[in-house]
Amino acid sequence: MTKTNPGRFFEDYSLGQTIRHAVPRTIAEGERAMYHALYPQRFALYSSDAFAIDCGLDGAPLDDMAVFHTVFGKTVPDVSLNAVANLGYAEGRFLKPVYAGDTLRSESEVIGLKQNSNGKSGVVWVRTTGYDQNDTPVLSYVRWVMVRKRDTEAPAPETTIPDLAKTVAAEDLVIPEGLTFEGYDAELAGEPHRAADYEVGEVIDHVDGTTIEEAEHMLATRLWQNTAKVHFDATFREDGKRLIYGGHVISLARALSFNGLANAQMIVAINAGAHANPCFAGDTVRAWSEVLDKAEVAPGIAAVRLRLVATRGAQAMPGQLRGEDGKYLPDVLLDLDYWALMPA
Amino acid sequence: MTKTNPGRFFEDYSLGQTIRHAVPRTIAEGERAMYHALYPQRFALYSSDAFAIDCGLDGAPLDDMAVFHTVFGKTVPDVSLNAVANLGYAEGRFLKPVYAGDTLRSESEVIGLKQNSNGKSGVVWVRTTGYDQNDTPVLSYVRWVMVRKRDTEAPAPETTIPDLAKTVAAEDLVIPEGLTFEGYDAELAGEPHRAADYEVGEVIDHVDGTTIEEAEHMLATRLWQNTAKVHFDATFREDGKRLIYGGHVISLARALSFNGLANAQMIVAINAGAHANPCFAGDTVRAWSEVLDKAEVAPGIAAVRLRLVATRGAQAMPGQLRGEDGKYLPDVLLDLDYWALMPA
Amino acid sequence: MTKTNPGRFFEDYSLGQTIRHAVPRTIAEGERAMYHALYPQRFALYSSDAFAIDCGLDGAPLDDMAVFHTVFGKTVPDVSLNAVANLGYAEGRFLKPVYAGDTLRSESEVIGLKQNSNGKSGVVWVRTTGYDQNDTPVLSYVRWVMVRKRDTEAPAPETTIPDLAKTVAAEDLVIPEGLTFEGYDAELAGEPHRAADYEVGEVIDHVDGTTIEEAEHMLATRLWQNTAKVHFDATFREDGKRLIYGGHVISLARALSFNGLANAQMIVAINAGAHANPCFAGDTVRAWSEVLDKAEVAPGIAAVRLRLVATRGAQAMPGQLRGEDGKYLPDVLLDLDYWALMPA
Repeated sequence: MTKTNPGRFFEDYSLGQTIRHAVPRTIAEGERAMYHALYPQRFALYSSDAFAIDCGLDGAPLDDMAVFHTVFGKTVPDVSLNAVANLGYAEGRFLKPVYAGDTLRSESEVIGLKQNSNGKSGVVWVRTTGYDQNDTPVLSYVRWVMVRKRDTEAPAPETTIPDLAKTVAAEDLVIPEGLTFEGYDAELAGEPHRAADYEVGEVIDHVDGTTIEEAEHMLATRLWQNTAKVHFDATFREDGKRLIYGGHVISLARALSFNGLANAQMIVAINAGAHANPCFAGDTVRAWSEVLDKAEVAPGIAAVRLRLVATRGAQAMPGQLRGEDGKYLPDVLLDLDYWALMPA
Repeated sequence: MTKTNPGRFFEDYSLGQTIRHAVPRTIAEGERAMYHALYPQRFALYSSDAFAIDCGLDGAPLDDMAVFHTVFGKTVPDVSLNAVANLGYAEGRFLKPVYAGDTLRSESEVIGLKQNSNGKSGVVWVRTTGYDQNDTPVLSYVRWVMVRKRDTEAPAPETTIPDLAKTVAAEDLVIPEGLTFEGYDAELAGEPHRAADYEVGEVIDHVDGTTIEEAEHMLATRLWQNTAKVHFDATFREDGKRLIYGGHVISLARALSFNGLANAQMIVAINAGAHANPCFAGDTVRAWSEVLDKAEVAPGIAAVRLRLVATRGAQAMPGQLRGEDGKYLPDVLLDLDYWALMPA
Repeated sequence: MTKTNPGRFFEDYSLGQTIRHAVPRTIAEGERAMYHALYPQRFALYSSDAFAIDCGLDGAPLDDMAVFHTVFGKTVPDVSLNAVANLGYAEGRFLKPVYAGDTLRSESEVIGLKQNSNGKSGVVWVRTTGYDQNDTPVLSYVRWVMVRKRDTEAPAPETTIPDLAKTVAAEDLVIPEGLTFEGYDAELAGEPHRAADYEVGEVIDHVDGTTIEEAEHMLATRLWQNTAKVHFDATFREDGKRLIYGGHVISLARALSFNGLANAQMIVAINAGAHANPCFAGDTVRAWSEVLDKAEVAPGIAAVRLRLVATRGAQAMPGQLRGEDGKYLPDVLLDLDYWALMPA
């Protein structure tokens, strides 16, 4: 009847189902420039062709999180249009750098299903893979969301909860072909600290804050062809507020983390992530990081596992994450666990 | 004396006059990215080089309406700087896809003149053609505007009202060379509906809404080098509001129409258009379409003639256009009549 | 201890010291498009590859001020993070056009130091040079800023005030290799006036005004990787306002100056500049220019020395600059003295 996309409801998913998401997207110099205008991004490997070539790559790849957002955006109409909540990420791995001119598309496989006891909704786990124009996978991650049922009378599927790794093992990280930090120019990169200079447990306050405008998060979210109504339509929520796409906060916090982590050049894995509280225009976002782990993954190349926390407000909150009740503090926006590559 | 452009007044136009508009513009990947950040654009042919190549083109062309805005923008300093009203469009035809790296310029021929009975203003009809760097026409359309007279005593020109086609005939539509929908991948395009699935008279509610910010419409309008003061200068109107460029509403509505018309890949003609009511920042724009006509224009390729209506507000208004008085409803922003190409 | 950049204080500078600034940046078509969306830029040489090729160049270079902002932005973390005031510019010369794909980096040499009599701060003069990926200089300028001392007890350095040219001499201007205005198409450029049509002392009111939004100046300032907190963080100043990067006002005023100076195609030198008053979102910016000097610098090519003044408010203020007390009027934002190339 209607030709528009109503989104999928909980009973529309079945275990093992593969969804080929719509609208492939060519990413080029324009998307790179937009990304660098939207976020205070300064990681040299993504900023300079010359620097990236000195690191053994063919040129500056598209920013890691821009790839994530593009792959993620395509899944929204099929996965999260009727989502009640975005519950988590796991096993995210960047498999190949993406360069200007590449075309990305996404596919998701349903790997878990669990109806909620109230019978009104359920949790869906999908493993999403982003492919380039040669059908080479560039990114893979698991995401789980709570989705409404269309018909509360629909029978519950058999419960299947996937067995997900708490973190991606260091030996499973994919190091981009050719990458080397041998002639690494730390002065041009912005900071002298190498992986060896960071200690597990160390907390870094990234100092700077950025106040978000409506136009900015909408430009960003549209650029990734994310169609969730709540980001764009001020009449959608009762309070008249547009909820900012969680990925916008990730990119903002990651860019802010340059100040103190300038050599954490490339994200290679996302171990876990929680959007702890909603973010709205007018919020001033700050960030802190905690070093969770380190591993040498190739000669001269270390992987550093980092917790990246975005907070809101005039004051930095380094090290503050949860209250006595174990819940995220109200001004914590993001708690992201990722691996980045750094000179060892 | 003054070296600045005062714009042309009604008595500065003469029948048959050709105006070569200033500032040629090279359009590249950056403009494409900006277009996709400014509008929730998802038509696969303009989003993906790979998809466009599969459709027989050399890559993803620049979005149809981006070409229109670029060609239109150049005419503003010569045609509409002193315009009282933008009255209509007719006989718009896209003649050749525009690709990243092409340089566009515009020329207009005065094809009609009619002084108003009050002697203070008159209507000017121009046929504008956009050319690429090889002087190949890429777009042609007729537009008419009401323009103030500099000197109300200036003699009225002979009245000439051009004979304009109500709609571009299907046989006059230009199908891009090489275009084919033979191996069309509807799943990647986002929807299964082909032209055959649409019925004349059918109304499609495009569901989604987008709230417009000042920064967004100004970024867009500047990108097309449109210089009309009313879009940029909050001190220009007495109410302190900046009027949003009508083309911004067209692009927004066209992008929203993806949801229900995902396969209406390319606009090939603009038959008529009216900016029914002014649009301002803060407005939430929705859209609906009506199928007006269909024609098979090449093997496997159908042209679908569509009415695209943009409305304002929290509620969708599918099918609602005019009041009992025959006038556009106050929340109708745009009434556009165009032909698009679709798999047959 | 802390790994973040605290910025340099007055006592961290020494005469002759060279600072190699971080984060090289590749500039491409995306940055060009962003620049043209952020500013009402219409100078044909920067807008059209075809026009630029007709003027003897390889294509449209990146806009002169975009190059300036990129080179300048890199110096902020090392030069002005703890600056109290940006005091002036001198001896700015554009040495080579920058094209899409070039990678820029910056170096500064400390050429002057003078501690203030209060012992709490001092003035630092640096000569900054921007280099491309082949280490060819593309821009050089002197800038001086007032910087806080970390420790007021630190000894004062010997005072050295550099001997700076009041203006760049016409014979020191670098004319881009191959540049010719022989077949110059003034109609396409937008105005008929050549250098010969301008008289020294002539004042041009550029008529148009642009109201600035927070999102716009932040997108722009981030694009140049300028990290000064005051532009981005609404919690930084006590009044909750974000100060707009002075370069944003320069680019806006320069773009507005097209209306009356459409043939002042390329800036080749910056003789002096003062950010007379702070600019904030919501301000409507206008501009006027005064012709200060003219010189023929190559066959058919003239350099025109211009004062570009940006003002704020609903009214244009052509010719108004300082009050009876000799101070800038409160609505004057910018007083810039530069050389531009124009058909003779």
